[in-house]
Amino acid sequence: MTIRIAITPGEPAGIGPDLLIKVAQQQWDAQLVVCADQEMLLQRAEQLNLPLTLIPFDAEHLATQGPGELYVKHIQCDKPVVTGQLDSDNGHYVVETLRVACEGNMNGLFDAVVTGPVHKGTINQAGISFSGHTEYFAAQSNTIDVVMLLATEGLRVALATTHIPLEYVSKAITRDRLHKVIHIINTDLRLKFGIENPRIYVCGLNPHAGENGHLGKEEITTISPALEELRAEGLTIIGPLPADTIFQPKYLEDADVVLAMYHDQGLPVLKYKGFGASVNITMGLPFIRTSVDHGTACDLAGTGNIDAGSMHLAMSKALELANRKV
Amino acid sequence: MTIRIAITPGEPAGIGPDLLIKVAQQQWDAQLVVCADQEMLLQRAEQLNLPLTLIPFDAEHLATQGPGELYVKHIQCDKPVVTGQLDSDNGHYVVETLRVACEGNMNGLFDAVVTGPVHKGTINQAGISFSGHTEYFAAQSNTIDVVMLLATEGLRVALATTHIPLEYVSKAITRDRLHKVIHIINTDLRLKFGIENPRIYVCGLNPHAGENGHLGKEEITTISPALEELRAEGLTIIGPLPADTIFQPKYLEDADVVLAMYHDQGLPVLKYKGFGASVNITMGLPFIRTSVDHGTACDLAGTGNIDAGSMHLAMSKALELANRKV
Repeated sequence: MTIRIAITPGEPAGIGPDLLIKVAQQQWDAQLVVCADQEMLLQRAEQLNLPLTLIPFDAEHLATQGPGELYVKHIQCDKPVVTGQLDSDNGHYVVETLRVACEGNMNGLFDAVVTGPVHKGTINQAGISFSGHTEYFAAQSNTIDVVMLLATEGLRVALATTHIPLEYVSKAITRDRLHKVIHIINTDLRLKFGIENPRIYVCGLNPHAGENGHLGKEEITTISPALEELRAEGLTIIGPLPADTIFQPKYLEDADVVLAMYHDQGLPVLKYKGFGASVNITMGLPFIRTSVDHGTACDLAGTGNIDAGSMHLAMSKALELANRKV
Repeated sequence: MTIRIAITPGEPAGIGPDLLIKVAQQQWDAQLVVCADQEMLLQRAEQLNLPLTLIPFDAEHLATQGPGELYVKHIQCDKPVVTGQLDSDNGHYVVETLRVACEGNMNGLFDAVVTGPVHKGTINQAGISFSGHTEYFAAQSNTIDVVMLLATEGLRVALATTHIPLEYVSKAITRDRLHKVIHIINTDLRLKFGIENPRIYVCGLNPHAGENGHLGKEEITTISPALEELRAEGLTIIGPLPADTIFQPKYLEDADVVLAMYHDQGLPVLKYKGFGASVNITMGLPFIRTSVDHGTACDLAGTGNIDAGSMHLAMSKALELANRKV
């Protein structure tokens, strides 16, 4: 059966539309439905000097498109888009594209959603409280907890905490949180990724994973006890291990995922390893969501001077996961 | 002129002696003086089935040794060493090897020191307050501030804070500290590494370098002002930049060093990139000190199943820096 994927290009002044138009030049074995303003898309294609034919989306009609074609669920911008220029007047438009994509995933119209980069500041300026795609989709789908996973060839990194100031990280790492996060990872790797018994490697919080309490106590008071409890439930968990030695070949060959305690402990090495080719996957949602791993890069919009590696990977991964689901 | 290098193999029950014996099998263009127990070294060489001739060190005699040879400044263990078995009775011995090497560097007898791994816990059990090589050498040489630098092919990472619990990092990052650390880095890169105008890339403290204050304030209140002040003094500083994007090719090609705010922000990617071939260099000391970047691995001592890449690099780097000094 043909898979149907919703795509939100995100901020219309940024490179999201460019990335989508670029990857749409090839044949995809799925119906790709872009939720966005059709005039903006056609204008951007013209700027990029790339062919683009938009086919109005009809829920009754399931078919793949050819190279240079996209199905479009038209959502009108509030103001004409000037490529490269952020405009908070289109903040509501951006959130509406996400709402439509989310709703379609919730009611079974779509099999997955792929998101381009949004600009949080511009959405906030529009008077909308918005802290990110992940949080938005979680709220819209009534999901309590989600986990951010970044993946590249040979490495998946999940985060126990994400976009919070470093000084709050220690307090945010609780037994309860580790239970929730690791259960979500374990469940999604089993059900969405088809890994029967996921091998979860876990970083310590402190340098050298605390070095027996000399460099911090959280491993002893919180992390190790939580991992013991999860092991007793039958999960396969290795750690806590020092973050500066966990990313070595013998561990990475064995690990299905590495859980970092915080953003800058796990993502520098992931993005270094997978430069230009890593994908952001939200675990714990009731649907499949993948995303590019970078920002809106407004200065490059319309120039064609962009690397669509992450968008390509986000679409490939969404297809792969959606096909497994079916 | 021939360079003279002191080498401390560190914990005698660990792999430090093994690493040294292994790298001593080749010709080195320097006089290598091992500060250690000669019986222990000969015993280990026998276990490893590697040739080793020890020549008693004489300060008046400056000459290189052949393959399989080392000059030795004999320091007797308090108890015979059992390979692989930590024994706090030899804690004082380990510290004495460091003292001798440090003193010889201070008085000009040696041109550099290369250190193998020590086991802090065992030294502490011997009733000696010891938090690491770096701190010991700083105290012995009356140095107030030092900076830890890890280097591998194509990347140097310096740390603004090192072995402290994560929850204290935010408070430890002060304008004063950044001034001191960056001045030490700038001075040592100029004087010891011969880089005329070092290009210093600096990470933010928070995810996305704080994202304009949304994810933490330290970049605005502390880091950026400190960097501005240092720029006004003529230093070349780029940042603060997000740690998950700073390690990309275009930056790394330009950077002479990346300054991470804390241990697990900078070292995972450094050790991933330079697996088995990175070296620890202490900046700010009045002499050259390089070290392996790993621990004592007692379970591997005597087996021969070790990777001497980091020890080899530590010696090569010490020679390179010492030759530049001369």
